Amino acid sequence: MSRDEMKTALNADISAALAPLARRPPSHVFLIACGGSLSVMHAGKYFLDRRSARLASDLLNADEFVCRDPLKLGPDALVILCSQTGMTPETLRAAAHARSRGARTIGMTLDPGSPLAKSAEAAVSYQASYTTGAPIDSADSNYGVLLMLLAELVRIVDGEDHVPALLQSLGALQPAIDRAHLHFAPVFADFAPRLARKSVVYTMASGPCYGAAYSFAICVLMEMLWIGSQAVHADEFFHGSFEVVDRDAAFIQFVGLGETRRLDERARAFLERFGASENLLVLDAGELDLCGIDEGFQPYLTPLILFDVLWKFAYRLAALRGHVMLDGRRYMKKLTDY
Amino acid sequence: MSRDEMKTALNADISAALAPLARRPPSHVFLIACGGSLSVMHAGKYFLDRRSARLASDLLNADEFVCRDPLKLGPDALVILCSQTGMTPETLRAAAHARSRGARTIGMTLDPGSPLAKSAEAAVSYQASYTTGAPIDSADSNYGVLLMLLAELVRIVDGEDHVPALLQSLGALQPAIDRAHLHFAPVFADFAPRLARKSVVYTMASGPCYGAAYSFAICVLMEMLWIGSQAVHADEFFHGSFEVVDRDAAFIQFVGLGETRRLDERARAFLERFGASENLLVLDAGELDLCGIDEGFQPYLTPLILFDVLWKFAYRLAALRGHVMLDGRRYMKKLTDY
Repeated sequence: MSRDEMKTALNADISAALAPLARRPPSHVFLIACGGSLSVMHAGKYFLDRRSARLASDLLNADEFVCRDPLKLGPDALVILCSQTGMTPETLRAAAHARSRGARTIGMTLDPGSPLAKSAEAAVSYQASYTTGAPIDSADSNYGVLLMLLAELVRIVDGEDHVPALLQSLGALQPAIDRAHLHFAPVFADFAPRLARKSVVYTMASGPCYGAAYSFAICVLMEMLWIGSQAVHADEFFHGSFEVVDRDAAFIQFVGLGETRRLDERARAFLERFGASENLLVLDAGELDLCGIDEGFQPYLTPLILFDVLWKFAYRLAALRGHVMLDGRRYMKKLTDY
Repeated sequence: MSRDEMKTALNADISAALAPLARRPPSHVFLIACGGSLSVMHAGKYFLDRRSARLASDLLNADEFVCRDPLKLGPDALVILCSQTGMTPETLRAAAHARSRGARTIGMTLDPGSPLAKSAEAAVSYQASYTTGAPIDSADSNYGVLLMLLAELVRIVDGEDHVPALLQSLGALQPAIDRAHLHFAPVFADFAPRLARKSVVYTMASGPCYGAAYSFAICVLMEMLWIGSQAVHADEFFHGSFEVVDRDAAFIQFVGLGETRRLDERARAFLERFGASENLLVLDAGELDLCGIDEGFQPYLTPLILFDVLWKFAYRLAALRGHVMLDGRRYMKKLTDY
């Protein structure tokens, strides 16, 4: 999709992947991936929980899914798998396992020629800027494509059509992200020197944003920057983790939109009271100009917007820590025998 | 249950809570709690996934559950809530919310006279040693009682009777735990001085043990000992977190039994290769004498055994850090206005 073109229809591969389900709609959806690709599924599960009365769903790490082998995995199940490269071994095994149990399978991947695209019954592709080298329209990112897939699925299974509101929202998404980058740039410049010196930086979120906080903790802070972390859930926080809060504790908090916002606001008030504001980077979606994005979809698109924006912060941290982002790894893509 | 008495029947309150469901069995189970009580639910969800073809299930923090308000929450849902004191505000709100949606509710709590016991349709009580002051039989702990509840539920809904095997296993549980304490005592004496000096200690697990690793991370290491932590899933580990591993990194790993054991073994091999063995405390359930515990239930009872055993390790860490366990908190039970 070019950046000045409004989205008026679902991507063709999404419609094609789901059309065969109309005859015998599934009753259970498994959202299956690993790491960063799994993190995206949290917003999808939240959407299904809120918008589908007919579909139960589970979100599982791909290898856990294969071992756990839930009894609900059968002909009434739809398994949506995601892997950027389409080559993650656990996710490929999960696709084969799901098919062996008679489930329908859809593989989301950057590369329509990848093993995952071939091993799933249907393939749906998405884009990421680091593979094209050029900026993409975020409507075509993993988050955007997953939401299109699930909105169309809910239309088919539940007869509730959220697709037009989503398409309208996706058309307004990239400009909103561009504005968010401008909004947070001075905040990031301010916080980067302090957080770059920390050995532990927690992330925190709730609701549809939890996955983005998880991904920033394990795929960015831990994997790329070797900073200790945990994605703390904003209410679970009060049942244990909050005892680590002192004036030195560093947190990156997502304050989302929609019904779980009050959880975020409560945790934020606690952090501001007992932490030190200079160590608390708060990304408040309430400060963003989301003009054109349907109010009902704002909560689901917030994690994508905030995660996209946070990449800039990650690069700042990397520069200050003398770390080469995307290359500064010890094990991943350097070793093959684990 | 006295410690020398075999368990031959389900606790009366469990049978009474579930009997009314036989007329109109639920199709969805929500497992709802906060913090340590939520951690126990992971083994329960795993059991349902493996043993029930009819019940879908979700495990959610209580306040997240209230906000998310899933469309599946209705007359066909059973909501099982747990709170030690029966006074956790989020869990009480969740019970009221579930009833307002027409769902059936069961409240698990230590105190049959507590607000949760009264606000749920049915109450099921369990025991914890810190409240009685005397050792309890772990068959009557939250893990034991939840498994009894779910095994009886599966008998009613699916017609598959795992109750006799569970009761036999629970009869053999406390002696197995007592032996496990003896087995790990010298290991804990060895590891405590080193891990007590760490500012971050990760826990790791998969499958039914994941909740126990989560609880040890947030309720013990973070809450009681102010040590940074995260409960790393043994396969998610390879998709981000593993990059923090070096010779100084400290991990407490649960190596469980059953089908997810291979995930744990893979992660353990990586830790042993790139970490330093003196910082890796491995709790391998394969080393335990589980005589009398049904093989099918060993994976589900392992988290209870290992978590019970780890309390001894927590007390050792506290002593070495000059920390008063259960009292060394800054916020929990000291403040009331958050």
